[in-house]
Amino acid sequence: MKALVYRGPGQKALEERPMPVIAAATDATVRITRTTICGTDLHILKGDVPDVAPGTILGHEGVGVVEQVGGAVSTFKPGDAVLISCITSCGKCEYCRKGMYSHCTTGGWILGHLIDGTQAEYVRIAHADTSLYPIPAGTDEEALVMLSDILPTGFECGVLNGQVQPGNTVAIVGSGPIGLAALMTAQLYSPAQIIMVDVNENRLAVAKTFGATALVNSGNEDPVAAVMKLTDGKGVDTSIEAVGIPATYSICEAIVAAGGRIANVGVHGHKVDLHLERLWSHNIALTTRLVDTVTTPMLLKTVVSGKLLPQQLITHHFTLDQVMAAYETFGNAALTKALKVIIRP
Amino acid sequence: MKALVYRGPGQKALEERPMPVIAAATDATVRITRTTICGTDLHILKGDVPDVAPGTILGHEGVGVVEQVGGAVSTFKPGDAVLISCITSCGKCEYCRKGMYSHCTTGGWILGHLIDGTQAEYVRIAHADTSLYPIPAGTDEEALVMLSDILPTGFECGVLNGQVQPGNTVAIVGSGPIGLAALMTAQLYSPAQIIMVDVNENRLAVAKTFGATALVNSGNEDPVAAVMKLTDGKGVDTSIEAVGIPATYSICEAIVAAGGRIANVGVHGHKVDLHLERLWSHNIALTTRLVDTVTTPMLLKTVVSGKLLPQQLITHHFTLDQVMAAYETFGNAALTKALKVIIRP
Amino acid sequence: MKALVYRGPGQKALEERPMPVIAAATDATVRITRTTICGTDLHILKGDVPDVAPGTILGHEGVGVVEQVGGAVSTFKPGDAVLISCITSCGKCEYCRKGMYSHCTTGGWILGHLIDGTQAEYVRIAHADTSLYPIPAGTDEEALVMLSDILPTGFECGVLNGQVQPGNTVAIVGSGPIGLAALMTAQLYSPAQIIMVDVNENRLAVAKTFGATALVNSGNEDPVAAVMKLTDGKGVDTSIEAVGIPATYSICEAIVAAGGRIANVGVHGHKVDLHLERLWSHNIALTTRLVDTVTTPMLLKTVVSGKLLPQQLITHHFTLDQVMAAYETFGNAALTKALKVIIRP
Amino acid sequence: MKALVYRGPGQKALEERPMPVIAAATDATVRITRTTICGTDLHILKGDVPDVAPGTILGHEGVGVVEQVGGAVSTFKPGDAVLISCITSCGKCEYCRKGMYSHCTTGGWILGHLIDGTQAEYVRIAHADTSLYPIPAGTDEEALVMLSDILPTGFECGVLNGQVQPGNTVAIVGSGPIGLAALMTAQLYSPAQIIMVDVNENRLAVAKTFGATALVNSGNEDPVAAVMKLTDGKGVDTSIEAVGIPATYSICEAIVAAGGRIANVGVHGHKVDLHLERLWSHNIALTTRLVDTVTTPMLLKTVVSGKLLPQQLITHHFTLDQVMAAYETFGNAALTKALKVIIRP
Repeated sequence: MKALVYRGPGQKALEERPMPVIAAATDATVRITRTTICGTDLHILKGDVPDVAPGTILGHEGVGVVEQVGGAVSTFKPGDAVLISCITSCGKCEYCRKGMYSHCTTGGWILGHLIDGTQAEYVRIAHADTSLYPIPAGTDEEALVMLSDILPTGFECGVLNGQVQPGNTVAIVGSGPIGLAALMTAQLYSPAQIIMVDVNENRLAVAKTFGATALVNSGNEDPVAAVMKLTDGKGVDTSIEAVGIPATYSICEAIVAAGGRIANVGVHGHKVDLHLERLWSHNIALTTRLVDTVTTPMLLKTVVSGKLLPQQLITHHFTLDQVMAAYETFGNAALTKALKVIIRP
Repeated sequence: MKALVYRGPGQKALEERPMPVIAAATDATVRITRTTICGTDLHILKGDVPDVAPGTILGHEGVGVVEQVGGAVSTFKPGDAVLISCITSCGKCEYCRKGMYSHCTTGGWILGHLIDGTQAEYVRIAHADTSLYPIPAGTDEEALVMLSDILPTGFECGVLNGQVQPGNTVAIVGSGPIGLAALMTAQLYSPAQIIMVDVNENRLAVAKTFGATALVNSGNEDPVAAVMKLTDGKGVDTSIEAVGIPATYSICEAIVAAGGRIANVGVHGHKVDLHLERLWSHNIALTTRLVDTVTTPMLLKTVVSGKLLPQQLITHHFTLDQVMAAYETFGNAALTKALKVIIRP
Repeated sequence: MKALVYRGPGQKALEERPMPVIAAATDATVRITRTTICGTDLHILKGDVPDVAPGTILGHEGVGVVEQVGGAVSTFKPGDAVLISCITSCGKCEYCRKGMYSHCTTGGWILGHLIDGTQAEYVRIAHADTSLYPIPAGTDEEALVMLSDILPTGFECGVLNGQVQPGNTVAIVGSGPIGLAALMTAQLYSPAQIIMVDVNENRLAVAKTFGATALVNSGNEDPVAAVMKLTDGKGVDTSIEAVGIPATYSICEAIVAAGGRIANVGVHGHKVDLHLERLWSHNIALTTRLVDTVTTPMLLKTVVSGKLLPQQLITHHFTLDQVMAAYETFGNAALTKALKVIIRP
Repeated sequence: MKALVYRGPGQKALEERPMPVIAAATDATVRITRTTICGTDLHILKGDVPDVAPGTILGHEGVGVVEQVGGAVSTFKPGDAVLISCITSCGKCEYCRKGMYSHCTTGGWILGHLIDGTQAEYVRIAHADTSLYPIPAGTDEEALVMLSDILPTGFECGVLNGQVQPGNTVAIVGSGPIGLAALMTAQLYSPAQIIMVDVNENRLAVAKTFGATALVNSGNEDPVAAVMKLTDGKGVDTSIEAVGIPATYSICEAIVAAGGRIANVGVHGHKVDLHLERLWSHNIALTTRLVDTVTTPMLLKTVVSGKLLPQQLITHHFTLDQVMAAYETFGNAALTKALKVIIRP
């Protein structure tokens, strides 16, 4: 089968690889019908995620059709349309039993990381019963690719951890795909105000169409002053960090109101300054989270009911043969205005 | 009347001052029967809290008897025995209405800070109806002095923010009065393990008698390694910072388990390093809080019912005339083994 | 001034009454600019609320302008535009301090019940600082009349107690004003499905325009069977009782899914059957509540931000001189299709 | 092997039965080392649980040693000491994924009910990985038999659903084994007052030694009046129904304070009266639950740490050969003062 393989920092190749096979009784193999590229894939290619071994097939998102199942799989059978979660969950360990699938002792984020991933014609899914979700008949499959990772990530790490509530004020720093996913899912809780902060005018314009109530271009104005002005000097109830660098974290910390929350979504490579000398008395909470995808069933319901339209995030389509162009397009988002790109084998 | 007055950095004096008078219809004046000294008073005396004006009477803790009440005070009358909260709360503003009394727009921590405090024969209490608590007949008044500040602080900032739960593992870094208050109130939720970390053997020994299940002397051994060993390499569900310096914060951050919480109680003068490059994927929460004293009625009930014995924190007794000696004793705790000192006019 | 006065069961009169005066330092008087009629007013007139003394001015909803304030009122001054809460809250008592204003020891629901109400040219409001809310400039005042009682009632008793969550399934039994208020505010949490049950086709049709996803006319079909069919035999996550009779409670109990919640909003005159022999093992919760109006500030924000459009509930307008006609219209809703009627002095 | 077999209403027999065998890859067989009798077993014998087929081996509690495991069992191996949960949980279905194991679509309460149970030398456990718990070395195994059912039932259905909190007031109606389990586990949250209500003086006396702060013999005095007097006329924050008949439910309803909770634990055979005409405005919640045993890992930690001493519930010991005498003793608790009886094969 064809698969996109990581070949070490800066190198990837579309190669012919053997079909995946059932390795454990709880495995399933899935024929991929749609996959996509994540910002994390770009990090891997830069060499920032050293535990990805050269030779690994990339990708941790996608939808497909079950090809084969192991003897202990009871929920799925060949032919079932499924959504693949970016997080593999055994359903048995201490962490899975408390809904913290990200820390599953034999799962977590392993696809396209520690085992072969989804940017291929087929993929093997471990702990299939608890790592795949059935796709309701009649659902837009492309939209559901957004539920593999980006929507639950924006929702769980940003919106739930940030405790967005009706009437509240939210700022999201970073209007890339993940910030937009947070913006989209934040509206499930009807905040009164959602301020979007970014340096890219196009992404801010997109945020406007997605429901942002105010835009701040931090390239043109001091974002802290701008957010404070928009909130009558109080700051926001929830600030969501959706970039992953010290500068954006620093904005989030500076704009949070007393009693508020800083919800980190970004993947950070460096430590940041935490100003406890100011914050110790401000009754704030700061949270981190690797997505658990524990809300996937709920998000599926909101998509089916039309409350969420994740297909809005899709800007480009490619075939697996064009995967190099897909990476090129996704990697040059400033130029191409790409958000999420769909790849079909 | 006699009162201990702040005279600028490094200077204090026991002086004769005019009796406080009712200034607003919601005021009460209280004859102090017992007061105490807080670590914050030492900070003020070092000059670390510059908004305390020279001439201010120190102290924000105490119990007493209502002397006079303003025309709009409906809950108390002269002669009532009362507990004075360190936090003044109007009961009306946006913050008070949501239980965040620390940020009351006309109150908060003002006693012995922005207005005259309790280390005196009498004190004026603003917003008396919502800043004093009736003392149930037959209660040990000295024990209740611990409910003005230290017990709600340890409980709200450490235990509640840290979400201590039955069966959980807790580490408290700092075994001074505030750490011991956290230790004492943490047991209201029956954690399985409470590890106490300090450099002072006496304070650790006291912690043992207060219910700590393990002690770590961070002067003798690497506290992070020690806590990790005590928790089978997992770290703690809740780490409580009860000192207020970067080094102790750093321990708290290093020992928190995935899915755990860092609850800051300490008053910090400097920023700290937040290792988001490690924590971003660990599903942790970090909280800060200035005590709201919103749990004072509940803590009162646990004292009355004998579940809490805050008098265990009291090591020394003085009269107001001996207040200089009281400060000397409290300020040299390493030598005197002082925890909380009681001062009676 | 003119006022509508309760004259005993079945009797009411528009009378000339003396202007209200400040009786306590915490009082304010308000010139009413808009008021309305509540289903509870009809109950009173039937004689169902025997603690309403003949001679009491009716009404507990409205907006207006502050006329006079007592000496201890600090938040409002004459001329301020205010929203009147149906619940009077002192802000000081045990209940107010924990957000249960409905049980305020010197307040609660007293307007048009134990003291003179709002269906008049002027009204006296006790505990004004904590029982009135400032109206933001530029807000539609008529819309805000809905925030005196009906919207917080539907929201607090139905939506919050019912723990409506994104993706959930909700049934509301009763599509009168209070059921519609629950329907409107439930959408702040983006449930996937909201099923409306009533016997009145017009009210169901209105519910459709307010966002109901399915309608069940319990006059034409078995409502339990219908809801079960709509939920694939599982029942609903939340059933909201918005009528107040045994038959509608019984529907709510029969349609709640295992793990679900029954949120009672209706005012009941009779006991009901609770089928513990079936429910004991179903992990359900049943809640009751007299509205606390603790969410009024939040609801105000959602109205200002345009997330809620409570003016949709207003069907008729009258002057205070036409108050008898207003009651006639409101009391014959089946015929007049009245939801909420606005009365202006 | 020997096993106690249900032979239809009123009939049971100690019989020789074939050893259980692994039927599914996720099964384990366990050699029972200790089991016990539950009040539910008595209900079954009375014929009150008609879905128990004659021929079924009784019992759903116990500890033992793993004998054999199916091919898909990954957590346990032969020789492991295990605690058997009364609830079988697949870990995969919608209910298990949200912690509602009682409603597992292929599990729930099936042991000694729909499949053969634990009052035997061996038992087959379905979904073994998620229905057994490893016993920490050095733990008192007899104590742990109490964790199969009675302790999690008292804790989850009574204490957690009742939201017992530090400083609160609790009444438990019924001082049998399940009421005592609620009493024992309620203290994990340090309520200020726990009032025990029963008609049996011995059971009340036991409750006293288990930590009850007040006793009410409802055979000698009006329990509602007595509880009201003990709570200054307010009623209790939490009332726990631990009997299962209308009369005891009725007490629980009458003594709950405004804002309080009624937590049902009892197994009911008849409907009860719910006085909504009184409660609609009292802001109360009433909950039901079949135990999920989702707190078993936590309870295990509190037993290991010595916070809970469940062995206090054990009054009698028998061998499996004496199982008829064990039932006799347990069934005549008023006479024998039996709480829980231990049976060893």
